Amino acid sequence: MRSMPTDAHVGAKFVVDRIVGMIQGVMRDAAREGELDDDAFIGIGLGSPGPLDRETGTVLETPNLGWRNFPLRDLIGKSVGLPAELDNDANAATLGECWQGAARGVSEVLGVTLGTGIGGGLVINGEVYHGASDVAGEIGHMTIDSTGRRCACGNYGCLEAYASGPAIAARAVEGLEAEAASLLPDMVDGDLDRITAAHVSEAIIAGDEYAADVMRETARFLGTGVANLVNILNPEMIVVSGGVTRAGDHLFGPLKAEVRKRAFKVAADACRIVPSELGDTAGVIGAAATFHLARLGPI
Amino acid sequence: MRSMPTDAHVGAKFVVDRIVGMIQGVMRDAAREGELDDDAFIGIGLGSPGPLDRETGTVLETPNLGWRNFPLRDLIGKSVGLPAELDNDANAATLGECWQGAARGVSEVLGVTLGTGIGGGLVINGEVYHGASDVAGEIGHMTIDSTGRRCACGNYGCLEAYASGPAIAARAVEGLEAEAASLLPDMVDGDLDRITAAHVSEAIIAGDEYAADVMRETARFLGTGVANLVNILNPEMIVVSGGVTRAGDHLFGPLKAEVRKRAFKVAADACRIVPSELGDTAGVIGAAATFHLARLGPI
Repeated sequence: MRSMPTDAHVGAKFVVDRIVGMIQGVMRDAAREGELDDDAFIGIGLGSPGPLDRETGTVLETPNLGWRNFPLRDLIGKSVGLPAELDNDANAATLGECWQGAARGVSEVLGVTLGTGIGGGLVINGEVYHGASDVAGEIGHMTIDSTGRRCACGNYGCLEAYASGPAIAARAVEGLEAEAASLLPDMVDGDLDRITAAHVSEAIIAGDEYAADVMRETARFLGTGVANLVNILNPEMIVVSGGVTRAGDHLFGPLKAEVRKRAFKVAADACRIVPSELGDTAGVIGAAATFHLARLGPI
Repeated sequence: MRSMPTDAHVGAKFVVDRIVGMIQGVMRDAAREGELDDDAFIGIGLGSPGPLDRETGTVLETPNLGWRNFPLRDLIGKSVGLPAELDNDANAATLGECWQGAARGVSEVLGVTLGTGIGGGLVINGEVYHGASDVAGEIGHMTIDSTGRRCACGNYGCLEAYASGPAIAARAVEGLEAEAASLLPDMVDGDLDRITAAHVSEAIIAGDEYAADVMRETARFLGTGVANLVNILNPEMIVVSGGVTRAGDHLFGPLKAEVRKRAFKVAADACRIVPSELGDTAGVIGAAATFHLARLGPI
């Protein structure tokens, strides 16, 4: 897989040109190596943060990228000269795990992606469930504490305000400012503003007790949200992905415990909570599946 | 429709005998009036609080009735001598609204039943969605305030701890104990323990400002939970039922406002939030539909 930073702050046109350039690069390299000629490329599957409109291929709103009513699918499809299909990135990642990853053969699956935001993808009866207007699965702004932490969206107590990457870093910094003993300050030369969720995971692996505490607390918040989803959706499997899952049992142990504490027993018993198998490639594999399902039928 | 109190405290056998007696009464009366003979009755549809197991027809657990692993379907079916099918009462009510009520012709519907507990039923693509183990739609114990009010289930901050009938009454009483001015104390001869959510609705109709305040607050809590469901499920319609809906705009006004405040705009715009059309009969009509769908195919 190839990857590049989005660099969304440079502008939407820059991001589109960069994606088009990467697609053309893949096609050129495959042709040069004699693996595939141009005819072998039949279309483009795209996964993007949402909410979005699949029918028009438009990204309606992305707080984290700053796009509004942005015709991503056609801009990329026309530039490359191939048909394209667009779906939500979390939906694509969940579909990827169902097709080639942790959820092979499972028909009721919820994918939870922990990153800058918290995304959700919902597979019901083996198909992505989109809801009435393609927005289903937006779990990041689920209120778990209506009088709690302020979220970037303006509301209070959203899951994202506790368990997204930036929220984990912010909560870690709060404790350090209250002088918790930790390896974290040395990892950023004392500049606490530079601390990210990745530093918290690294510190845990290095044996840092404070970082492990921050992760346990994260897992309890996340478990509250996941328990809600277990009760509402009664899925067979929840696949958790994102850099934070590197914390392993420091995340999954207290997460599962909180779900058992808060969800109905029959629902909790029916649901396996597992880490992603495909990691960062889940979204790309799932985006390819999205194109196939939309244009060519079942895989 | 005929109805009788459950009187669950007398015991499970008493409840089953009472239900069987009512079914036999309906059949006898129809025969006596020459409307239908016995052959016209082909089966029994049952809606019960859950969680339950549809395959075995067993109610697994009902905190409010005190049943555990209770073979309700076969006890009633065998006593009456007809095949029976069992589903969750909230699922049945939602199916009823889809077949004959407020959600006719709508394919993605969430039913929310406000009563002693808060039940949810989920119709996706025109069919009840049951999840991996028949528990999907259990929205009452969704955490909306993880450090909030204690719930009967033992956790803190469940939706039911704020917006169920008993929770509305309890919150109303708290304010009265703090000496809020209201018609409510006179309605129960000063015995605040007798106040129910129905009294709150009656007091609102009589112009009581304090009761209207309690309902507005209820609607905001409920709106927090409903906004979560709008983001997660992106339904076309949410049908709200239960005695509390008699409060009309005192409930629906602030409920819709809270959903607009907390849910994604595209999801909130796509979702109509309406009161039940069938009221108490939704569950019975839906239970009949449950039997038909299970044994005879699409209606």
